[in-house]
Amino acid sequence: MSTRKPTLALVGATGAVGTVMLELLSTRQDVWGEIRLIASARSAGKKLVVRGEEVEVVALSEECFEGVDVAMFDVPDEVSAQWAPIAAAKGAVAVDNSGAFRMDPEVPLVVPEVNPAAARIRPRGIISNPNCTTLSMVVALGALHAELGLRELVVSSYQAASGAGQPGIDALREQIEKVSGSTTLGTQPGDVRRAVGDFGPFPAPLALNVVPWAGSLKEDGWSSEELKVRNESRKILGLPDLKVSATCVRVPVVTTHSLAVHAVFENDVTVARAHEILAEAPGVVLCDDPANGEFPTPADVVGTDPTWVGRVRQALDFPNTLEMFMCGDNLRKGAALNTAQIAELVAAELAAQAEEA
Amino acid sequence: MSTRKPTLALVGATGAVGTVMLELLSTRQDVWGEIRLIASARSAGKKLVVRGEEVEVVALSEECFEGVDVAMFDVPDEVSAQWAPIAAAKGAVAVDNSGAFRMDPEVPLVVPEVNPAAARIRPRGIISNPNCTTLSMVVALGALHAELGLRELVVSSYQAASGAGQPGIDALREQIEKVSGSTTLGTQPGDVRRAVGDFGPFPAPLALNVVPWAGSLKEDGWSSEELKVRNESRKILGLPDLKVSATCVRVPVVTTHSLAVHAVFENDVTVARAHEILAEAPGVVLCDDPANGEFPTPADVVGTDPTWVGRVRQALDFPNTLEMFMCGDNLRKGAALNTAQIAELVAAELAAQAEEA
Repeated sequence: MSTRKPTLALVGATGAVGTVMLELLSTRQDVWGEIRLIASARSAGKKLVVRGEEVEVVALSEECFEGVDVAMFDVPDEVSAQWAPIAAAKGAVAVDNSGAFRMDPEVPLVVPEVNPAAARIRPRGIISNPNCTTLSMVVALGALHAELGLRELVVSSYQAASGAGQPGIDALREQIEKVSGSTTLGTQPGDVRRAVGDFGPFPAPLALNVVPWAGSLKEDGWSSEELKVRNESRKILGLPDLKVSATCVRVPVVTTHSLAVHAVFENDVTVARAHEILAEAPGVVLCDDPANGEFPTPADVVGTDPTWVGRVRQALDFPNTLEMFMCGDNLRKGAALNTAQIAELVAAELAAQAEEA
Repeated sequence: MSTRKPTLALVGATGAVGTVMLELLSTRQDVWGEIRLIASARSAGKKLVVRGEEVEVVALSEECFEGVDVAMFDVPDEVSAQWAPIAAAKGAVAVDNSGAFRMDPEVPLVVPEVNPAAARIRPRGIISNPNCTTLSMVVALGALHAELGLRELVVSSYQAASGAGQPGIDALREQIEKVSGSTTLGTQPGDVRRAVGDFGPFPAPLALNVVPWAGSLKEDGWSSEELKVRNESRKILGLPDLKVSATCVRVPVVTTHSLAVHAVFENDVTVARAHEILAEAPGVVLCDDPANGEFPTPADVVGTDPTWVGRVRQALDFPNTLEMFMCGDNLRKGAALNTAQIAELVAAELAAQAEEA
């Protein structure tokens, strides 16, 4: 039996998701030997704390991946597209949080509570982590699907600024400062637009506003984010014909995405049965007692691991249909946590293989 | 031919909607003779400006309605429930913006662009104005329904603080001041909750948050706001069997409600045809060119009269279905403007009767 713990590389250690990952790696069960922190050359030499120890950030290069068992990528699509295959070629399993490989048929798209077995079949040596909006709902939907058979989804999102990374957070905080103290802003067309000036990574002001746009423009007026919700939900749930329509909207929340979900099932469904399923589902918290003011909100859910589900109602006019409101921390389960969970699945697999050998 | 212009009473002149109404009455075509401003005894004696002139507010009493032709009510349900019938008994047509009479089969629920003829049949002498969330979408939906036959609606709302009146606006502004300047709030569970302290009329903090609740708790977990969207849409559109599911969510916007709308039609529909219909519909502005950053947002729509519609997409997996994003100023078309339009319909009817007599 081998006692060597696997070596982990974290590429993108200094970004918004990387920062949460350092926190997670310091608090979750420690399955890792060396943890190597990697970022762009600009950040090399910085010292970051993980597991209570300072670790120096090294610049991304081929050599970084020597001896690495699992390499996590929390970087933009184009960086992952170039470097995840290099890490894989060096023998690491790449766990990628970008959009570069998610729809590649040779790359599994994994949510450990929903489709853990998919992580074992990875012909390219790469496993993809779903986008944060899909992740904020798919754990709960997976549990409901297993019992009731999911058929259709109509989803509207309330997405946090940090979905656009640290620049998104910075832009929201700066805009809030600029509108704070005013007794008139938000009452005349364009007044908020003029007051905040710089929109940061968003196409319109986010303070005192909501912006019905996330991602890039795709065919027929759809945003990339809306198509991801459809395509990634289908792939994770193993339902290539699932009917999905999503409208993705950015809201002035720092972190934690919310979704209003209209879900149609094959089987008859009641609120009581849905409550039972959700209460028992791993990675889900049922928070549904509006008489006592209990429903999930991003301000209460941020910083927690599970998907929180509330406002469960049986549709009055649609058969076998539930209306729900879900919240999930887009930097934790929506990004860092799910990546960490996938990496831990791989670590357990490697340990089992070492034991057999 | 009579030349006497009708006398208008505005009950609730000092509230959030009343304030917008004074502005509208000062800028729209002036069809009114005397305008009488009425509020609670507490506000009596205040002087407010309408049509460029100071008018003293009088306390609500039976005598207020002597000689009044049209009485607008922008007051809480219980005040309308008591006083609108009194105004009607005194011979006025009551145009009520509360929820007190909306579902009364003897009270028409009127949106002048959609069902103007309904305003003429008012056995109780009362006409109801729909709630602001329904109004933010029904003008556009009415135009689409007339051509395409509406069958199903799945709606998620992004509702502004002023839907809860001036206390809602005040609470949001105070909360924004309390979170402004922080570099950490909104990252740990409950930190915003503790920082803002007082939630005002909302059941949770609204700054840096969204709250999936509006109105009061009704049967089976539904909120009153969600049932209003269903029941009022059916009544206005004359579609008692329209399938509707709504999830109503409050967002940190001062004024202007937004809605993500999934609308299923009887007839085949394309984005091009929907654009044609919406571009020609009275009271609607089509704003749909995401390649050039054009979609409606509350910060741009606030202070304008129409319903703005953008993000029109043909659903990929649902036949005859459009996805849309709509914004409407909840204090103008959503309340004051629609009330003013109904009152003007009545004024025109009275003028026509006087001419015949």
